[in-house]
Amino acid sequence: MLRLTLRRVPSWNQNLQHICKKSTFGLSKLTNSLSSGKPDTLPIIEDFSRRHIGPNAAEVEEMLKVLGVESLDELTRKTVPEDILDERPLKVSAPMSELELARRVNKIAAKNKVFRNYIGMGYYDSKVPPVIVRNILENPGWYTSYTPYQAEIAQGRMESLINFQTMVTDMTGLPIANASLLDEATAAAEAMALCYRNMKKKQVTPTFFVDQAVFPQSLGVILTRASFLGVKVVVGDYKSFDYNTPGLCGVLFQYPNSDGKVIDYTEYIKAAQANKALAACATDLLALTMLKPPGEYGFDVAFGSAQRFGVPLGYGGPHAAFFSVKKSLQRSIPGRIIGVTKDADNGLAYRLTLQTREQHIKRNKATSNICTAQALLANMAAMYAVYHGAEGLYSIAEKVHHSTCIVAEGARRAGHHIDEGAFFDTLKIKIRNDQAYQDALINAEIRHINIRKYDEPNTIGISLDETVTSEDLDDLLFVLGAPSVSAENGDNWANLWQQLKPKDGGILRSKFERTSDFLTHPTFNNYRSEHQLTRYIRYLEKKDVSLVHSMIPLGSCTMKLNATSELTPISKPEFANIHPFAPAYQTQGFFQLIKELHDDLCEVTGYDAVSFQPNSGAQGEYAGLLAIRAYQHDIGQGHRNICLVPVSAHGTNPASAQMAGLSVVVVKTLPNGEIDMKDIIEKCEKYKDNLSCIMITYPSTYGVFEPAVRELCETIHSYGGQVYLDGANMNAMVGLCKPGKFGADVSHLNLHKTFCIPHGGGGPGVGPIGVKSHLAPFLPGHEVLPPIETTQPGARPFGQVSAAPYGSALILPISWAYLKLMGPTALRSATEVAILNANYMAKRLEKHYPIMFRNENGFCAHEFILDTRSFPGANVGVMDIAKRLQDYGFHGPTTSWPVVNTLMVEPTESEDKAELDRYCDALISIRQEIQDIQDGKADPVNNVLKNAPHTMESVTADTWDRPYSRKQAAYPLSWLTTSKKIWPGSARVDDAYGDQNVFCTCPPLEAYSISDLENPEVLQ
Amino acid sequence: MLRLTLRRVPSWNQNLQHICKKSTFGLSKLTNSLSSGKPDTLPIIEDFSRRHIGPNAAEVEEMLKVLGVESLDELTRKTVPEDILDERPLKVSAPMSELELARRVNKIAAKNKVFRNYIGMGYYDSKVPPVIVRNILENPGWYTSYTPYQAEIAQGRMESLINFQTMVTDMTGLPIANASLLDEATAAAEAMALCYRNMKKKQVTPTFFVDQAVFPQSLGVILTRASFLGVKVVVGDYKSFDYNTPGLCGVLFQYPNSDGKVIDYTEYIKAAQANKALAACATDLLALTMLKPPGEYGFDVAFGSAQRFGVPLGYGGPHAAFFSVKKSLQRSIPGRIIGVTKDADNGLAYRLTLQTREQHIKRNKATSNICTAQALLANMAAMYAVYHGAEGLYSIAEKVHHSTCIVAEGARRAGHHIDEGAFFDTLKIKIRNDQAYQDALINAEIRHINIRKYDEPNTIGISLDETVTSEDLDDLLFVLGAPSVSAENGDNWANLWQQLKPKDGGILRSKFERTSDFLTHPTFNNYRSEHQLTRYIRYLEKKDVSLVHSMIPLGSCTMKLNATSELTPISKPEFANIHPFAPAYQTQGFFQLIKELHDDLCEVTGYDAVSFQPNSGAQGEYAGLLAIRAYQHDIGQGHRNICLVPVSAHGTNPASAQMAGLSVVVVKTLPNGEIDMKDIIEKCEKYKDNLSCIMITYPSTYGVFEPAVRELCETIHSYGGQVYLDGANMNAMVGLCKPGKFGADVSHLNLHKTFCIPHGGGGPGVGPIGVKSHLAPFLPGHEVLPPIETTQPGARPFGQVSAAPYGSALILPISWAYLKLMGPTALRSATEVAILNANYMAKRLEKHYPIMFRNENGFCAHEFILDTRSFPGANVGVMDIAKRLQDYGFHGPTTSWPVVNTLMVEPTESEDKAELDRYCDALISIRQEIQDIQDGKADPVNNVLKNAPHTMESVTADTWDRPYSRKQAAYPLSWLTTSKKIWPGSARVDDAYGDQNVFCTCPPLEAYSISDLENPEVLQ
Repeated sequence: MLRLTLRRVPSWNQNLQHICKKSTFGLSKLTNSLSSGKPDTLPIIEDFSRRHIGPNAAEVEEMLKVLGVESLDELTRKTVPEDILDERPLKVSAPMSELELARRVNKIAAKNKVFRNYIGMGYYDSKVPPVIVRNILENPGWYTSYTPYQAEIAQGRMESLINFQTMVTDMTGLPIANASLLDEATAAAEAMALCYRNMKKKQVTPTFFVDQAVFPQSLGVILTRASFLGVKVVVGDYKSFDYNTPGLCGVLFQYPNSDGKVIDYTEYIKAAQANKALAACATDLLALTMLKPPGEYGFDVAFGSAQRFGVPLGYGGPHAAFFSVKKSLQRSIPGRIIGVTKDADNGLAYRLTLQTREQHIKRNKATSNICTAQALLANMAAMYAVYHGAEGLYSIAEKVHHSTCIVAEGARRAGHHIDEGAFFDTLKIKIRNDQAYQDALINAEIRHINIRKYDEPNTIGISLDETVTSEDLDDLLFVLGAPSVSAENGDNWANLWQQLKPKDGGILRSKFERTSDFLTHPTFNNYRSEHQLTRYIRYLEKKDVSLVHSMIPLGSCTMKLNATSELTPISKPEFANIHPFAPAYQTQGFFQLIKELHDDLCEVTGYDAVSFQPNSGAQGEYAGLLAIRAYQHDIGQGHRNICLVPVSAHGTNPASAQMAGLSVVVVKTLPNGEIDMKDIIEKCEKYKDNLSCIMITYPSTYGVFEPAVRELCETIHSYGGQVYLDGANMNAMVGLCKPGKFGADVSHLNLHKTFCIPHGGGGPGVGPIGVKSHLAPFLPGHEVLPPIETTQPGARPFGQVSAAPYGSALILPISWAYLKLMGPTALRSATEVAILNANYMAKRLEKHYPIMFRNENGFCAHEFILDTRSFPGANVGVMDIAKRLQDYGFHGPTTSWPVVNTLMVEPTESEDKAELDRYCDALISIRQEIQDIQDGKADPVNNVLKNAPHTMESVTADTWDRPYSRKQAAYPLSWLTTSKKIWPGSARVDDAYGDQNVFCTCPPLEAYSISDLENPEVLQ
Repeated sequence: MLRLTLRRVPSWNQNLQHICKKSTFGLSKLTNSLSSGKPDTLPIIEDFSRRHIGPNAAEVEEMLKVLGVESLDELTRKTVPEDILDERPLKVSAPMSELELARRVNKIAAKNKVFRNYIGMGYYDSKVPPVIVRNILENPGWYTSYTPYQAEIAQGRMESLINFQTMVTDMTGLPIANASLLDEATAAAEAMALCYRNMKKKQVTPTFFVDQAVFPQSLGVILTRASFLGVKVVVGDYKSFDYNTPGLCGVLFQYPNSDGKVIDYTEYIKAAQANKALAACATDLLALTMLKPPGEYGFDVAFGSAQRFGVPLGYGGPHAAFFSVKKSLQRSIPGRIIGVTKDADNGLAYRLTLQTREQHIKRNKATSNICTAQALLANMAAMYAVYHGAEGLYSIAEKVHHSTCIVAEGARRAGHHIDEGAFFDTLKIKIRNDQAYQDALINAEIRHINIRKYDEPNTIGISLDETVTSEDLDDLLFVLGAPSVSAENGDNWANLWQQLKPKDGGILRSKFERTSDFLTHPTFNNYRSEHQLTRYIRYLEKKDVSLVHSMIPLGSCTMKLNATSELTPISKPEFANIHPFAPAYQTQGFFQLIKELHDDLCEVTGYDAVSFQPNSGAQGEYAGLLAIRAYQHDIGQGHRNICLVPVSAHGTNPASAQMAGLSVVVVKTLPNGEIDMKDIIEKCEKYKDNLSCIMITYPSTYGVFEPAVRELCETIHSYGGQVYLDGANMNAMVGLCKPGKFGADVSHLNLHKTFCIPHGGGGPGVGPIGVKSHLAPFLPGHEVLPPIETTQPGARPFGQVSAAPYGSALILPISWAYLKLMGPTALRSATEVAILNANYMAKRLEKHYPIMFRNENGFCAHEFILDTRSFPGANVGVMDIAKRLQDYGFHGPTTSWPVVNTLMVEPTESEDKAELDRYCDALISIRQEIQDIQDGKADPVNNVLKNAPHTMESVTADTWDRPYSRKQAAYPLSWLTTSKKIWPGSARVDDAYGDQNVFCTCPPLEAYSISDLENPEVLQ
């Protein structure tokens, strides 16, 4: 306990201690928290760690007693192998109070300069409706929920995600959409991968054509991804490309393109399709309110970014990318899809459909490792569409387009050149001469305006957005040297306009104009007032379980506290309104913050460098493997292509390896869950010439600190291999041991697990990679704006993995704040309490369920596996237990992973003992319910488990014909009173039905049950 | 409808209109909102009014059709008397978009300078815990709820308020506390009034002694209030006052006092009490964690501000004042009290107890007109105490006190003088000479520090607070010219400290040190982690109904939309962290905003000047009457003391009149609800020599625009009287008619009704008064910092009504934003739609319930009264209907006011037609339920109305023995599905029981039912 009581007010001097002796006089009998001071210390003021760490000192003592150990330190020594335990305190700064943090954030934020952004390139200033900010982005009821795997308690956000999918299908004119991807550039690479997957004969070199006018950052990710997939990418002019090229699997055009041009690609789409290739379209949602949609041209795939639909720029992310396909490709679409299915009561319900995650986690056969969506951002974008509706979005588009027409006319009048042809919101302008060009750049800076600078001489780009006012237009005309237009002087505007003709780029009445309806579903027409939208958002929220209700002990997912203080910075305009390609002098605040986070993460992990570009864990894995490959290539070992993966690995590991061009060789696990070192050595020996790396997770996916990890790393290194350590379980290591110090070469970190970024109901995530110094030169670069770490001498980036240089930069302050608030001692304490909490629960539960995989001292790491595979005499599966937990007000643990039909429980340090006890009580009570079936006291089919979860509808119905009582159904434990009761949003969903009957847009309002959906009249 | 379609993007020039002709090409079929453009206008972008006003254009048309009128304009003409209808558009600025508003707010905010504040005087910088900001202050689930009159759907916030009361009783050591008052100075005046009320024999001039070292702003309000109550206030030194003064009703000391001194008043309390006077103590919650509480000294009353418990400074408010008394005074305590009672199922439940509101609305016998509490702020303060607990609060106090000791020693070492004696956080320092004094002032400014400047030569005050860091201390030492202390150099701190002795003012181990426990209830010990507190806050929120669920049509209370954009400014530090006595150069942003709001309100009301000081409607009434009295005194008519009040007036009217020293004469009402002009003239004639004024409400409290209002005003004026017009119903007049133009002299405005400040679950409120020019010189002033309007030449303020110069200044941006967002046209439209909505509901309901009081054309104003007084054969009262509405998911309308046993419905403009229809459906269905009783189809006693509301507990119970079904109980209408269902937090509360058994602190956790409370063991 010593460590937990050593915290002090950091800024007060040690010599003041004798002052404080007096202070305990009146305090002693009051003190009962974790942070109670020792007699000779000043009592702790505003110690954040006691807000973050759930159990107080007395509870810690109690739990230690249950485990039969004296102290947290003893527990640690009996859990973590001695040869990796690191006694040195972390060299991170002393803890700040929440107020100090807020002041510090303000100072750093002030170093970012917020300019008006007309750079475009897929990122646009957006008016985020305040009602959405307050009720979704800043509402823990939305942002702390988990990925909707437990469908019955996730109906609210799945309805919102199906709104997102409906919006995407409507806007793009393609019938199947997913629930978002990481960013537009990743979506572009996924489109390429889909085309490749779709290719029937792969004898000829697969070739993918990309028009030269796609966004450069999209091209960057495509090129990186293609190179390891073995796909040849041809970049060129869509007009001159030979669409009969053998092996052509797909083509990609952008609409409107990177230079703003709106082009009719019909004949080229046909030419590509005639050669059995697919045609993909990068596009823009706002433009599609006015423009004929990709589906109507015959495109097979459309994708883009939904950022400008009410999501802030955030220096590049997180944003939701969208992705839609033709019906025939519905089973090839990457990422998650929400679908409509029926529940046990035959009602309509939503669920993750097509098992897309599992589909793509087909291990070493995968061509995509996509795990994460951007659910929170997709929900914001969907609500933006719900709030504005078709007519509102059209009005916004129209304003943007008209404004662009005015700027175009101004530019021409000032003597600059704009190519002929239609545009929507973006102009590529060749300034008339050098002097005017220099003037334009200087004037832009004076007016605090960012424009796009092309490499071509005297060429700039201007993209307008919904925030533009007439004053802004006037400033742009000033920048262009066009006649100034004052709002008072109407003639100028009029004169300017009278020159405009449709031939000058106006879309209205052109052949590009959209004629088809969109967003006709009532959901997009019923919520125009703030009351209506607020109530709709709250209505959806009420259906879902999040951390504001109860603990969510998702093994391997670390659902810890997402503190308000950590989250408030992301609402600040100085972070939220920065364009990812803004020049460096405007982003010094971000640089400082990223540098500090970089250094802290290096200290915590023992690595030498970190790249923040990967915006999900799976992408981090992929990036880490590419760094290894690039390094090995650099030292003449590029032929090494064998990746060892333990059988217990997370499915993304082999998928990522496959995407990195590695061949996966599986290594065995011993019955106690540890990796079979003998097998490792055998495989190393067998593949010694070609061994590239091993991918391990530590502590293992079985929740144990394997004692031989240092030996394992040394072994791999001795065979010329590299060690990739999956950082999913970093929450068991912070402050105790460092992968970079005990032998790993590279890891990704899930900032949305260990470092407090909320899960957002299924994204965003951030998956930075930490590497040892020999891999540092190969960290990802960027086509447009190289991240700082790649500007070091000797840098040889392997390529690019995300659209933005620093990935989802806007949410990095969350992890930064967590580290600053906690400081060295509390970071270690948090890990120790995470381990304590897991072991305490395991101890309480071991009499009721077998606990799998503990170490020789009987301790697990920060999570453990409950064996729920066999209940003789009762036909009860792991899903029955997870669903029954909902009746107790709890989200189930991770099911069937890493061992089929078991539960993996990770309580985290943020849950107090009372909450852990309630969860244990629920599991113990459920065990008794199972026993009742085993003992023949309960019906083998019609019982509380099989019928779980029980809906409010069934429990309040006039008739009740179950062989158990309503109370047993809904309030099986005494503390589960009505005021604490959480009801599921549906009865148990029917997975099989949903997979067989794919329906993934908003069901008609008339459809109350699935049978209505099958009724063709309703579907009209 | 013309008016509704005329909105345009304000900054675009008219000459651009022809551009826009094209724009409707693709739009026409999409348009269906209120804001749809006419063919020749640019479609409206981001029109806020369509977010604020519920019904869209099509719905407005539908509703007009139901009413049989062609247009809103026709409805207006048939509703508002022609001789007051004002056709001129309001001269307020054109509407801003929400983004434009946010930008404007930033610019204005930047004009406020945020200094560190050591001025003290009852206002201290506070660390507002971010988890409380996000989950209460910025959570519409908390701030949009109404005063908890409907107890069953207000259990959550009442539990929080009872936490507040428990905290106050614990801290002050007095057993009965109320649920907050408006501010500390008002509380001081209420303490004085309580002493006066308590006086048995009032023959001798009642005298109230106030020690000279109370806060000057408290004294200011006491003096104003006392002068009209007829109480003589003696201000002097507590040591030399003669406590045997005849007529002494009370004494007031401050502890610690305004100069920071901690004094033992025991002998003076005894002396006063020996003379049958009461002893009141102004005190400080944080100090009381270390200091012996007032109750232990024998004080009868204690009060103060709870601001420093987690509520921002906000330039003076809103904050919650607290007020506690001895048991014997429990029925004299002003304001609202939450008490424990039982519900129909014998469970524990909370309710407003002692009927304190009604008690004090005993019309012209009242000595207090307090209506409003500061519920939202009291809840924040309570949660602050819940989160920190006793040990946390003590630690904060200790830090503050130690820091003060260090500053004191620094001051002495620098040669300045501090009086002997104990202090807590405040020092009065006489600087050693003129030069050092000047240096101190200049250095304070250089370091951005505000200190208190006394009138006495070379004297300053410094009050520390929980935000103080060692750097701050160092800055203060710099200001004092004391040796600088760097954090690095420990010796200096140590040397400084070694000189300190308890005799130098330290409290520890002194006779003042607190020895009694506080905050021992589990509620103050169970929520230390952010998870725990978040879940507790959300758990409470879940029990309550607010505007995020459904409409709350409280007649006379105008529960309209509180838009997020209006509320976001109050979270900005540039508004939140300003001390009310900060010098003018630091508050220019506030001045600009207050000036703009002032001018807009003058334009809207037709008045010439506005004072923002009154922080509730009742206080506005009082201030308005005092302005009249001061004016009449000024013109030699000070003898006029008769106030006419219609029988239909709100109870606060006569109470306020009484407090202003006026005698109330009631005037009659005609059967149609209109004031009886004949009676008016008779009364005027009868009291013509002494007629001071009339108080009317317009439209009347019966919800009708009386045709003779102009005539009435002229009549009063002709008899030398003034017209006070209660602005409660201003929502029916904005943009249509102006009280200042049709004859009224003064009105208060409820910014929390018409101008969008949320009700906060029972406060804050703001009640500014508008006056005609002849009354303007008499608007309230301030003892410390005169508001700008009183610095005009000729100003002769009547006194002071609130603690802060501009009352609850922090929330003025809300109303300011509303006016800026709406602009002239939409403000009028909002009023018209408010009237439309009310008439539409009345029309739909008139076949089911008699509608009382409509005008000759058959139209009501913005509200109407449902006659629910008689259902022959069914013993159903208005309360049964209100409670039954809860089962339908609705908050009931205003009950029994202004007519006993009726319902007054005010839907406001923010509700759309679908919501109005649902509410009507519910009322119609209830009418049928009543009919079933009348027809003998339902049991006369055991029926859905009498048993309403039905709890989740009862509807999900295993046994159901009601003569109707569960479905009839819980889901009586088809749209009332489980996912829309709102459950009450308790069964019907027992009012009588609660009044007879007063229990107003946290019940012990073991008490699940009221019988437990009666068990002495549980109560231990």
